[in-house]
Amino acid sequence: MLAVEEPLEIRIGFGEITNRQQKNLSVTMRTPGHDIELAIGFLFTEGIIRSYEQVESAKYCEDVGRQEEKENVVRVELKPEVKLNVEKLQRNFYTTSSCGVCGKSSIDAVKQQCLKLNVNWQTETSLIHALPQNLRNAQRVFDHTGGLHASGLFNLQGELVLLREDVGRHNALDKVIGAMLIKNRLPLSDYMLLVSGRSSFELVQKAALTGIPLLAAVGAPSSLAVQLAQDVNMTLLGFVRDERFNIYSGEERIRV
Amino acid sequence: MLAVEEPLEIRIGFGEITNRQQKNLSVTMRTPGHDIELAIGFLFTEGIIRSYEQVESAKYCEDVGRQEEKENVVRVELKPEVKLNVEKLQRNFYTTSSCGVCGKSSIDAVKQQCLKLNVNWQTETSLIHALPQNLRNAQRVFDHTGGLHASGLFNLQGELVLLREDVGRHNALDKVIGAMLIKNRLPLSDYMLLVSGRSSFELVQKAALTGIPLLAAVGAPSSLAVQLAQDVNMTLLGFVRDERFNIYSGEERIRV
Repeated sequence: MLAVEEPLEIRIGFGEITNRQQKNLSVTMRTPGHDIELAIGFLFTEGIIRSYEQVESAKYCEDVGRQEEKENVVRVELKPEVKLNVEKLQRNFYTTSSCGVCGKSSIDAVKQQCLKLNVNWQTETSLIHALPQNLRNAQRVFDHTGGLHASGLFNLQGELVLLREDVGRHNALDKVIGAMLIKNRLPLSDYMLLVSGRSSFELVQKAALTGIPLLAAVGAPSSLAVQLAQDVNMTLLGFVRDERFNIYSGEERIRV
Repeated sequence: MLAVEEPLEIRIGFGEITNRQQKNLSVTMRTPGHDIELAIGFLFTEGIIRSYEQVESAKYCEDVGRQEEKENVVRVELKPEVKLNVEKLQRNFYTTSSCGVCGKSSIDAVKQQCLKLNVNWQTETSLIHALPQNLRNAQRVFDHTGGLHASGLFNLQGELVLLREDVGRHNALDKVIGAMLIKNRLPLSDYMLLVSGRSSFELVQKAALTGIPLLAAVGAPSSLAVQLAQDVNMTLLGFVRDERFNIYSGEERIRV
C-alpha cells in the first residue's frame, strides 16, 4: 500500500465585484483529502488572509478540463472588500512551501506578524511523553504505508483534538490550521502541536502565526527553527520519543 | 548541536549582452555549504539549463546589503546565447521545491524530458543491503544532529562516490546533481542513488532527469513516485534497511 501523492493547485479570485481577478497561487504535492482546509490554511500561513471571514467561498474548481484533475484544483474566492498586497502575492510565488523568508530582515518581519506567545500555562513532562503514542494510535494510514507525515493538535489535558496526515509535512500542518480557522478557533493559545518529523523554520513560523505556544517534534529541530522559537517565546521540543525529549526554548512551560 | 538552516536565494542573469536581465528565481531553506552546486543542480532540475556549459559564472552575490546575508545569495550568469523560456520561468516560480508539475498533462511532459532509462545492468541484493550503512558511515553531521537528509551517489560496485547532506531532501539531491553536472559527468547511467528519507514524485523526477536508473530510499515511496518510476523505467526501491527492501519498479535490474 502506498501513500497517495497528487498535485493540488490553489487558485484565488479577488478584487472589487466590477474588477474581479484570478491568480494561480501555488501548486503543492499533497495527499488528497481535507483539500479545502489545506487551501485555507495555506492562504492564512502565507499571510494572504487573516481570518476565514475574508473568504467568500472555497471549493473544487469546476472549470478544469479533465475529470481526474477536477479534484486537484481548489478555487478560493475572497470577499470583494479584501485588499490584497499584490507585491506580497508575488513574493509568495517565490517561496511556496519551501520557505517563508529571504534573509534576516524578513525574519524580523515574520516575528512582528506573529501573535505574542505570552501564555503562561505549564504542562507536565509525563504528559509530553505520552503525546507520540497518542498520535500513532490515531495514525491509521501511516501504519499501512509508513509514508505520511502527521500533525496533531492536543489540548492541555494531552488529548488529541485534531490529526491530519500528508506526504508533505507543511501540508499536514496547513490542514490542521485551516480546519481550526474554518471553525473560528484561532488563536490556538491553549493547544500543543506534535509533528511527526523534524521541525524547520517554516513549521515554527506557521505554528507561531496561529498562536500555538508549544511545538513538539519527534525529530530534530534546525538552527533557524530554534532561533525563531526563542524570538517569539515558543516552547520548542525535539526528539520527543522513548520517554525523553530536548527543550530548545520556552522551558518555563514544562514542569519537570 | 543543531543542523544549520538558512535561506538561499538564487538569482540568474540572462539575455543578450546588450539587454541583460536579472531574475530572483527562488528562495530555498538549506544547510549552508555546496551552495554553488545547489544552485546549478536546481537550475538543471527545473529545466532552466541543460548543461554546465550554459553557465558563464556562478558565485555569491556581492551586491547584497548586510554582511551576514552575502553568503545567502547566489547569482548565476547564463551565457548570452542561452535562450530562456520566460513562461517556463514563471511556472517555476509557482512550484519551486514543492513540486514540478500541475496535473497529469504535465507528468506527460516530464516523462518526455527525461532521459530514456534503457540501461540494462544488474546489481546484487547483497550490494543493495550494504548501501544504508555505507551512507551512514559517511554522514558525520547527521550523527551529531539527527537533523539532516542525505543523498548518496554510489557506483555499480556499491562504493559511495558523493554524499551531500541538507535540511531539505530536495536540496541534498540538487547538490549531488549540481556537483556531477559541474564535473560534466551526466548522464548518470552507471550510478545508483540512495536517499535517507522517503521518495516523492519530485525526487524520482530529479533522478530521472539525470539518467540515474536506480533510486533506493530508506523510507516509503508515494503513489506518484512509483507511477513516474514505472513510466520512465527506473528501478525504485523503498524501505531499504535492516537487510530487506521492497521493489516498486524496474525489478529486472535486481539479481535476487
